[in-house]
Amino acid sequence: MAHPVSPLAPTEYPELPEVAGVRFATAEAGIKYKNRTDVLLVAMDPGTVVAGVLTRSKCPSAAVDWCRERLAGGKARALLVNSGNANAFTGQKGKASTAASAAFVAEALGVSASEIFLASTGVIGEPLDAQKFAGVTREMAGRLAPAPWMDAAKAIMTTDTFPKVATATVEFDGVPVTISGIAKGSGMIAPDMATMLSFVFTDAPISAAVLQGLLQPQIDKSFNAITVDSDTSTSDTCLVFATGKATMTPISDAADPRVAVFAEALGDVLHELAMWTIKDGEGATKLVTVTVTGATSDKSATRIAQSIANSPLVKTAIAGEDANWGRIVMAVGKAGEPADRDKLAIRFGEFVLAQQGERAPSYDEAATSAYMKNQELEIGVDLGLGSGTATVYTCDLTHGYIDINGNYRS
Amino acid sequence: MAHPVSPLAPTEYPELPEVAGVRFATAEAGIKYKNRTDVLLVAMDPGTVVAGVLTRSKCPSAAVDWCRERLAGGKARALLVNSGNANAFTGQKGKASTAASAAFVAEALGVSASEIFLASTGVIGEPLDAQKFAGVTREMAGRLAPAPWMDAAKAIMTTDTFPKVATATVEFDGVPVTISGIAKGSGMIAPDMATMLSFVFTDAPISAAVLQGLLQPQIDKSFNAITVDSDTSTSDTCLVFATGKATMTPISDAADPRVAVFAEALGDVLHELAMWTIKDGEGATKLVTVTVTGATSDKSATRIAQSIANSPLVKTAIAGEDANWGRIVMAVGKAGEPADRDKLAIRFGEFVLAQQGERAPSYDEAATSAYMKNQELEIGVDLGLGSGTATVYTCDLTHGYIDINGNYRS
Repeated sequence: MAHPVSPLAPTEYPELPEVAGVRFATAEAGIKYKNRTDVLLVAMDPGTVVAGVLTRSKCPSAAVDWCRERLAGGKARALLVNSGNANAFTGQKGKASTAASAAFVAEALGVSASEIFLASTGVIGEPLDAQKFAGVTREMAGRLAPAPWMDAAKAIMTTDTFPKVATATVEFDGVPVTISGIAKGSGMIAPDMATMLSFVFTDAPISAAVLQGLLQPQIDKSFNAITVDSDTSTSDTCLVFATGKATMTPISDAADPRVAVFAEALGDVLHELAMWTIKDGEGATKLVTVTVTGATSDKSATRIAQSIANSPLVKTAIAGEDANWGRIVMAVGKAGEPADRDKLAIRFGEFVLAQQGERAPSYDEAATSAYMKNQELEIGVDLGLGSGTATVYTCDLTHGYIDINGNYRS
Repeated sequence: MAHPVSPLAPTEYPELPEVAGVRFATAEAGIKYKNRTDVLLVAMDPGTVVAGVLTRSKCPSAAVDWCRERLAGGKARALLVNSGNANAFTGQKGKASTAASAAFVAEALGVSASEIFLASTGVIGEPLDAQKFAGVTREMAGRLAPAPWMDAAKAIMTTDTFPKVATATVEFDGVPVTISGIAKGSGMIAPDMATMLSFVFTDAPISAAVLQGLLQPQIDKSFNAITVDSDTSTSDTCLVFATGKATMTPISDAADPRVAVFAEALGDVLHELAMWTIKDGEGATKLVTVTVTGATSDKSATRIAQSIANSPLVKTAIAGEDANWGRIVMAVGKAGEPADRDKLAIRFGEFVLAQQGERAPSYDEAATSAYMKNQELEIGVDLGLGSGTATVYTCDLTHGYIDINGNYRS
């Protein structure tokens, strides 16, 4: 936890407005860390609905299993999140731990366990002692408040070097609707489904079914489009809670024209949280946007973009500020997707490096090298085969990643 | 090239016997490096046959294209290999460069271009000036000799920190047959087909068709079972040349019982070369053998083993000598292959860490941590689902990898 703060950290944070019907508290439960908060309790008013996207890992955490069972109900009254222990690969003990944790929350808030959601992040394989929450949940229940959001974002951090928050407001017939979210994630980020953990709250009156339906496409453009290290977490969880407190006609039909407007605003919040996650990628010093065009399909474009974004050789070249575009060729070539070497074009920013299968006549090594010194870089690949496109966001691979992960547990 | 020699380098090299019908020479062509050999010319007597496995990259080098066209002929008289430039993604210039290079060899040795094989390794995207070989091939042709093999292995190195050679001898009815090979490779190693470059020579009298038929299964157990960084090269080439000089009845039928014996000996040489490649993985300090059992199929087992072997989080934990088996759980979970968390067992060496979906009762942190200090480690994963098995070899991910790849071109 003593790693240097990412150079890509925000220089200032937005003031997050309260979301009616949402109150929270954080505490030090002493799960693993000392002298820092490691548990977040969120209480939501009756009538709150929930939608979510969970990890596709075949080894999901007990908390993910717990949420998957309860998402079908679509109702939520509470969320308990801890950092320091992922409660993953903990077998029957893990299952019992989720039940016990929820029981503490149910008792503290007087809500049903079927409307309680859980998330855990941290070390995999160590049993999570739910007794750590015993007095803590009741104590937190006594001081729930609608702010400050930064405290919530800090309590769920693991190797994150800064808290991650984002907010958006959208108006429907003059009624403002707030969407505010937090996220954590730094390593083991290749979501292919969600991020490590992200929780978004809105006062929009929207049905669980409509919310669930609009969520996945927004996830695909945000948390599903980022990768730090190609390693998918066992705990990835993105939950969106809607309290329905905004005084507008409820949205209960997916064909309602307001759905697209709300989805876009939610997408903005998710995208911003995803960008902060990449900018806090373990050891990251650069944000890299990889855009693939001209593929035979969007799916093929995504696979090629991921192949580039996950390549250790591409990522180390970027860390070294080396315009080594030959490694982009390599990453396209290894992706296993349709590609014709002799139609391939590659650009870094506005600099065209290669086209029609060889170095571009206009290639300017000095100018491209100067471009590589930027903190935010764009890599463009055009396959010249079709109309498939995709964008994937990643960071560079530096000594910092090795430092952080060479001794994370100890 | 000034990177420290791998701690896993051999402490001594075998004496490689001559292979009748094979002569070679190395030279300094000044392609990229200074004060070191960077070109290898091998001349083989009439009657030599060849088999090979080439990269499946969609962006193969011009030399790979050249070899693919000529392998069908099955005959070989010469091999020209250069380091410093991969002649990959060089378009029509690259194609012209291969033709010109072969023409120099044809002229120097008086052989047909259809029987000349080429391989190039080094930077991608820079045109390879064939004129560098102009006087060099003729000069080398004047001093061809059947030894020393170490010179040949050295001339093809790029970021390798030590030359790689292996040899085996097998007898058929009292007639000794020699199999000797060299390889290069250190980064951009995830062959899924071959290695960067490997050339094996034998005096066995064997038909090209039989040789080609027996080669792929041996590649699958050696070069196809290693990964340094999941990055597949554009130049991967493994060629096996057989001069037929050994005075035994030729092998021309795949059903000949001697095929299995020869294949095993060839497999031993390829496996040893593959292990040296991993031991010289960029920045490697540990050799890791990942064995997956109990998968639903061998293919599924291979994918899970690769997911573990390619995981940056697994590899950094190993570098940090941390028995962080939770990351193995993660890598199994992300592989996308059938897995049941609650049947999973994990061991490091003889230490069972996890079974039936949770930490093993016998888990001993201190003993396991002590085990992690070994230079060669074994990770075992049993899925408990079927009889599929696979073994993949990898190395750790260290600061050395970042050092080497953060400024490779410059």
